[in-house]
Amino acid sequence: MIYRRLGRSGLQVSLFSLGSWVTFHNQVDHVGVREMMAMAWDAGVNFFDNAEVYANGESEVLMGKALKELSWNRLDYVISSKFYWGLKGGEMPQSSINSRNTLNRKYLLQAVDGSLQRLGLEYLDLIYCHRADQHTPIEETVWAMHHIIEQGKALYWGTSEWSAAEIMAAWEIAERHHLHKPVMEQPEYHLFHRQRVEKEYARLYEHMGLGLTTWSPLASGLLTGKYLNGVPEGSRASLQALSFLKEGLLDPDKNAAVAELRDFAQSINCSVSQLALAWVAHNPHVSSVILGASRQEQLQENLAALHVLKALTPENVQRIESITEKYAD
Amino acid sequence: MIYRRLGRSGLQVSLFSLGSWVTFHNQVDHVGVREMMAMAWDAGVNFFDNAEVYANGESEVLMGKALKELSWNRLDYVISSKFYWGLKGGEMPQSSINSRNTLNRKYLLQAVDGSLQRLGLEYLDLIYCHRADQHTPIEETVWAMHHIIEQGKALYWGTSEWSAAEIMAAWEIAERHHLHKPVMEQPEYHLFHRQRVEKEYARLYEHMGLGLTTWSPLASGLLTGKYLNGVPEGSRASLQALSFLKEGLLDPDKNAAVAELRDFAQSINCSVSQLALAWVAHNPHVSSVILGASRQEQLQENLAALHVLKALTPENVQRIESITEKYAD
Amino acid sequence: MIYRRLGRSGLQVSLFSLGSWVTFHNQVDHVGVREMMAMAWDAGVNFFDNAEVYANGESEVLMGKALKELSWNRLDYVISSKFYWGLKGGEMPQSSINSRNTLNRKYLLQAVDGSLQRLGLEYLDLIYCHRADQHTPIEETVWAMHHIIEQGKALYWGTSEWSAAEIMAAWEIAERHHLHKPVMEQPEYHLFHRQRVEKEYARLYEHMGLGLTTWSPLASGLLTGKYLNGVPEGSRASLQALSFLKEGLLDPDKNAAVAELRDFAQSINCSVSQLALAWVAHNPHVSSVILGASRQEQLQENLAALHVLKALTPENVQRIESITEKYAD
Amino acid sequence: MIYRRLGRSGLQVSLFSLGSWVTFHNQVDHVGVREMMAMAWDAGVNFFDNAEVYANGESEVLMGKALKELSWNRLDYVISSKFYWGLKGGEMPQSSINSRNTLNRKYLLQAVDGSLQRLGLEYLDLIYCHRADQHTPIEETVWAMHHIIEQGKALYWGTSEWSAAEIMAAWEIAERHHLHKPVMEQPEYHLFHRQRVEKEYARLYEHMGLGLTTWSPLASGLLTGKYLNGVPEGSRASLQALSFLKEGLLDPDKNAAVAELRDFAQSINCSVSQLALAWVAHNPHVSSVILGASRQEQLQENLAALHVLKALTPENVQRIESITEKYAD
Repeated sequence: MIYRRLGRSGLQVSLFSLGSWVTFHNQVDHVGVREMMAMAWDAGVNFFDNAEVYANGESEVLMGKALKELSWNRLDYVISSKFYWGLKGGEMPQSSINSRNTLNRKYLLQAVDGSLQRLGLEYLDLIYCHRADQHTPIEETVWAMHHIIEQGKALYWGTSEWSAAEIMAAWEIAERHHLHKPVMEQPEYHLFHRQRVEKEYARLYEHMGLGLTTWSPLASGLLTGKYLNGVPEGSRASLQALSFLKEGLLDPDKNAAVAELRDFAQSINCSVSQLALAWVAHNPHVSSVILGASRQEQLQENLAALHVLKALTPENVQRIESITEKYAD
Repeated sequence: MIYRRLGRSGLQVSLFSLGSWVTFHNQVDHVGVREMMAMAWDAGVNFFDNAEVYANGESEVLMGKALKELSWNRLDYVISSKFYWGLKGGEMPQSSINSRNTLNRKYLLQAVDGSLQRLGLEYLDLIYCHRADQHTPIEETVWAMHHIIEQGKALYWGTSEWSAAEIMAAWEIAERHHLHKPVMEQPEYHLFHRQRVEKEYARLYEHMGLGLTTWSPLASGLLTGKYLNGVPEGSRASLQALSFLKEGLLDPDKNAAVAELRDFAQSINCSVSQLALAWVAHNPHVSSVILGASRQEQLQENLAALHVLKALTPENVQRIESITEKYAD
Repeated sequence: MIYRRLGRSGLQVSLFSLGSWVTFHNQVDHVGVREMMAMAWDAGVNFFDNAEVYANGESEVLMGKALKELSWNRLDYVISSKFYWGLKGGEMPQSSINSRNTLNRKYLLQAVDGSLQRLGLEYLDLIYCHRADQHTPIEETVWAMHHIIEQGKALYWGTSEWSAAEIMAAWEIAERHHLHKPVMEQPEYHLFHRQRVEKEYARLYEHMGLGLTTWSPLASGLLTGKYLNGVPEGSRASLQALSFLKEGLLDPDKNAAVAELRDFAQSINCSVSQLALAWVAHNPHVSSVILGASRQEQLQENLAALHVLKALTPENVQRIESITEKYAD
Repeated sequence: MIYRRLGRSGLQVSLFSLGSWVTFHNQVDHVGVREMMAMAWDAGVNFFDNAEVYANGESEVLMGKALKELSWNRLDYVISSKFYWGLKGGEMPQSSINSRNTLNRKYLLQAVDGSLQRLGLEYLDLIYCHRADQHTPIEETVWAMHHIIEQGKALYWGTSEWSAAEIMAAWEIAERHHLHKPVMEQPEYHLFHRQRVEKEYARLYEHMGLGLTTWSPLASGLLTGKYLNGVPEGSRASLQALSFLKEGLLDPDKNAAVAELRDFAQSINCSVSQLALAWVAHNPHVSSVILGASRQEQLQENLAALHVLKALTPENVQRIESITEKYAD
């Protein structure tokens, strides 16, 4: 495994990490979670990504059980959670007004406690603001993140899908008021979605040492090539909850590009998935590429993308990008 | 129910909220308090206002009992208390010198603990400095408020009936020393008392994002029309403890204006109380209008003022204000 | 009783207060301490002064016992302690190197815990740096005081017998680093020792709002007139531990001035002690005059000096000062 | 014993102190450790130096047992530990990536807890960053040190073998963000290794008040004269773990200089070891010279170097330095 510093911080995370989004609880049960985490661990993975909202808290419960059974040394692994969406609650309007889609102080302080309890941990390594909240001043959120870290309930904090301006604002407020600064962002990043990471955030890497833990490296499966011939059963596009993805996943231009990538991948002896994963990992600003998997073989294949990295010569990278860039945003 | 952000903070409070002043313990008993809170809850109210001094601590005891029995989710409701007047103590001069009419560090730290115990809560959402204290430096009070929030005993702090200059001073001290800033004020605000909210505080809304939770929206009952024909039994003006209000409540000019308002209210199918409440809520700087009630029907009627809001067209607002403004301060 | 703010702080202390120095444990036993404190309490005293070093910790033990038995409301009284000299320990050089005559972080943090334990209190109201320490940077001491206050173990901190420059340095460091500032000084102050309070500290009262709690208002008994005819048995000058005071107490010029003061005191119907005490209290920068007493009658007489204050017209003050000023430093 | 302030801090440490490096656990057992610490104590030593990495945690365990049995007053002694290298863990790459050779937040917070547990202490007096970490921003390390001190788990923090620029950077970050500043460095310092202490750090003594606790005063035994005739059994040069030292210890030029020093030492009635130790102690920037010893007689002899200090006249110091300086770095 390769390890990279989480941005400019001193924490090192595995270049490929395991995320629980979509799969844990919904597609993978208690035993499956533990076995998949053990497999990732054996491959050198030390970062396991989670969020309060994944499976409405059940994803944290399952990861907590697995961690207890695996009983690794706490210093050796890194656990994250993310806060913003909140948990499903009662039907009254009060049940969502201060606990869903918010980053206010009340929600954040209470949400972290819930997450620690579900995970059975004394502290989270990484906490993310899962989205930006236009209705809470960034200063209030920075103070709350600082408070959680001062209490010893988390070590580092960051954001997910915030704009560059929002991230910089948070960083400047923290610098001015002597609070803990954000150190990482979790953006979507893959061959068809590059603008934010490569253009919008460009100044942040040097200015504040931003690290990235990226999600959806395979574009929800599009880059596996599985949608070349329509929607397979059990795929994300077939899931009711993710039906909004369907149109994008069947885009004929993108699938044509995927077919071309597949041919190129075969020419260098890897799958198109592995090629796409290696391409994300190849960006030096990426600290960790979060992998999701519903089956162990899938995870195994994806982790093996590590070996494709060395094939990514400047020429090959240019070739890959020339195939996809006209369909990328 | 409509919810508004508490000033620029990320906390959302119901536009109408329930206050315990005067009524809890004195006019409403244990069961009545619970039922009135349940009724408010059913109407979407999420903010319940209290203070240490109300019924000398008994108001907090009753609200605490009700909260325990109602067992709502802690994230879903917002509880306040206020500190300055202190509790009645012994007869020695020492029993009041540092614990009554003060905002010094000693009193504030101890008072919050007492309030939490009476309410049976782990934290208060909002704590207010119930009045300004000319004998304690604002810096000392800001530090104490910050300390309480850092301890996790409260989430946000504000003031009640402070001058604009005092609020700004507190805000600037907090900004300079990197302490938690005040976010809300609790002023008296109704058709006969407008100057402070509309003129004196004018700069604060934008400069520091001040939010308002207003009290006495019906001018101690004057705006219900109940004093049009003298002092009814059981009214505030008839209460010994509030006899200082009597003269104002019987003011003939103001009651004449109320009579005129009542006619206008009838023309748009609401009571004069509802018209007066809607007028307060109509001010966008008001985050929450605190309602008091000694009977459930009263509360029901007042909460229904929400529906009058849409009738407050610019023309109607001008009409209402033209009736009362010459008697307003 | 008259109460004054402790400098610019919001805490109010009785103009006359009871100190345990010299007397508690050495001259007054467990019952006597409780009775004397009760008598002071009945006269309106709310501030009881102590220090770690007084009777090597036993003074705190006795005051703690008395407080427990008297069971006053914690909000109603103010307890101080002071740290610098340390407690007598073992014979090894290590037993004094970091725990005697120091204001370093190690000593201060541990000393406060010991003091709280002996007094049986959860917090001290006032903590003093009992002397300045040339061997510890003021910044280290300010941080330690801040730390103790942040932990909730004390409410306010100050100094005793520090130079004006040292006090200002502490205040400026606290202002710059956003730490709790010193609010009071405990200097020796009486008719024969005026320079520090009246000249050296002159700028501090306005600039930083310094309050004073003064000690030795009767110049170790000289101003009682008891040394007019030599050393009486049981007086401070006769105590072995305080023999260094003897020469000063028998100074013929000063005793001649005391005789003259006594005559003036008789002319306005008070004792010379009362006159001297009232003169200290008359200085508006003095927040509290700390009284020591080995007998209840003594305390009673001294507390009665309160009534002499109104006799201190400008002419009378000038008369008093003209008698003593040529022997004062 | 002579005591010196730890740099500009208020803590005083014995000029000679006892370090556990190399010897505790490996060469000295449980009883030996206690007896050696008792002997040092009897000579006035109050500072006992340790580190997490020494004997992989066992050195802290032994010192903790000895402290418990010796039951000195906690105010009377000073214990240090150091963090960077980490403890030996599992074989997985994860077992070292965030817990070895690092000063990141995750490692530091957890490492201090482990150290306190092994030592059986509530707080460490001094904590050192055992080396600089090029892969963690200095700001992250300063915040973590500050956090540990705020939690009450340590009193002062410093560095070991950091460059002057790194130390200054840490100090400036702490000053800017109002955090606890580093107060001491632990460098190697002896007659053959002088450049860092005397040249590189020259500005730091006045600018930030840096204190030094120096290690290897006898150059791993070279300055005892024991390598004048090859490698004796049981010496450091003969230990497998320290074989990297062998070449330097047998350097003929240095040993010739040691022979010359020995003659000079005899002329002033001390051993060459004592002369070398006294020379280190003679530097006023050195707060404490850390002695290691595998036998009690050795420790006794080395502690007696204190008496040689007075023989270090300017002429004698010049003589000593002229013998060694051409082989010194």
